Amino acid sequence: MKFYDCNPAPSPRRARMFIAEKGLEIPIVEVDLMANEHLSDKFKAINPQCTVPALELDDGTVICESVAISRYLEELYPDPPLFGVDALDKAMVEMWNRRIEHYCLAPVAESFRNFSKAFRTRSLTGPVDFKQVPELVERGRKRAEAFLADWDAQLADNRYITGDRFTIADITGVCTADFAMRIKIPVLEDYPNIKRWYEEVSARPSAKL
Amino acid sequence: MKFYDCNPAPSPRRARMFIAEKGLEIPIVEVDLMANEHLSDKFKAINPQCTVPALELDDGTVICESVAISRYLEELYPDPPLFGVDALDKAMVEMWNRRIEHYCLAPVAESFRNFSKAFRTRSLTGPVDFKQVPELVERGRKRAEAFLADWDAQLADNRYITGDRFTIADITGVCTADFAMRIKIPVLEDYPNIKRWYEEVSARPSAKL
Repeated sequence: MKFYDCNPAPSPRRARMFIAEKGLEIPIVEVDLMANEHLSDKFKAINPQCTVPALELDDGTVICESVAISRYLEELYPDPPLFGVDALDKAMVEMWNRRIEHYCLAPVAESFRNFSKAFRTRSLTGPVDFKQVPELVERGRKRAEAFLADWDAQLADNRYITGDRFTIADITGVCTADFAMRIKIPVLEDYPNIKRWYEEVSARPSAKL
Repeated sequence: MKFYDCNPAPSPRRARMFIAEKGLEIPIVEVDLMANEHLSDKFKAINPQCTVPALELDDGTVICESVAISRYLEELYPDPPLFGVDALDKAMVEMWNRRIEHYCLAPVAESFRNFSKAFRTRSLTGPVDFKQVPELVERGRKRAEAFLADWDAQLADNRYITGDRFTIADITGVCTADFAMRIKIPVLEDYPNIKRWYEEVSARPSAKL
């Protein structure tokens, strides 16, 4: 296997953390997004959607999307289980993973990509250029901030996001929290449960890769 | 169990189709989105994110997000399998389900909600009002259209989206295709493989509910 990565970006970080939590070592191919390597014909042959991460299997099959890569590895290496252990637990992991994606990670990305000069014509991932929409800088921030109270409430009685067990929802959570802090969203200041949880999960070796 | 639904909306339709494909009958509670019933305190106690679908279990536990509901039912009722059957198949179902969501369904929703007068202050789902951003009407359409060639190519050699077996990716696909056609995106005209696939999957009884 080969893992197409870009170290500073949040999406490949999610899969990289998942790989580390499974105790796996997969050779990394670093894709230089700042040099637009992901928009090259060579990379489009790997992923026509021009995004990292991507996992290339030994027979050349490519799996894209961080959660799809993670699910593949969960099936091959079920221990420790990171997608839940029974029907309701699996549903809750799916629900919270998606809630954090939709209500926090995507809005933070929206704010960041519509603000940063580096993304002036690249406000969305994918093969097509889209120019920035200035209104989305503030909208993205507000959307993300609106979700933090619910996230904090969920952690009031839970050590990890869905209960006693660390899961992919925690991986999405810590990657999202760090990304949100890059655009100075006060994730930790006003949310004591998120802060307590963040201090624990961000100290895991997988969070430091 | 109780299924909180809204018949005309695409997200609950995805879960409704899934339930029908499993041969299940779950009592439906229709939520009147046009009358803002989902923004009421009563519904916020069910889902603080104010979205349908939601599945309420007999003990009062609520599962939100159509894919989380589907995954719960897949675990309880594994036949027919709709999330894939082995590691690679499950990864491909996850990948294509997400690709269709991110590159087509979300952009179609973006275009629709920023255009329709009914959503003037409700351009996004969730508990917070966001006014429409007119630039997103055209942007959403362009994003969705940019994905159709890849979708069509995937169906050139596959009966269903990920191969010989109907899966949740096909459910997401048919719900997305119908939604796209509501805003007059020519999903079928220029894409013969999508057309052939659409004619087959939209004829299933589950697609007519």
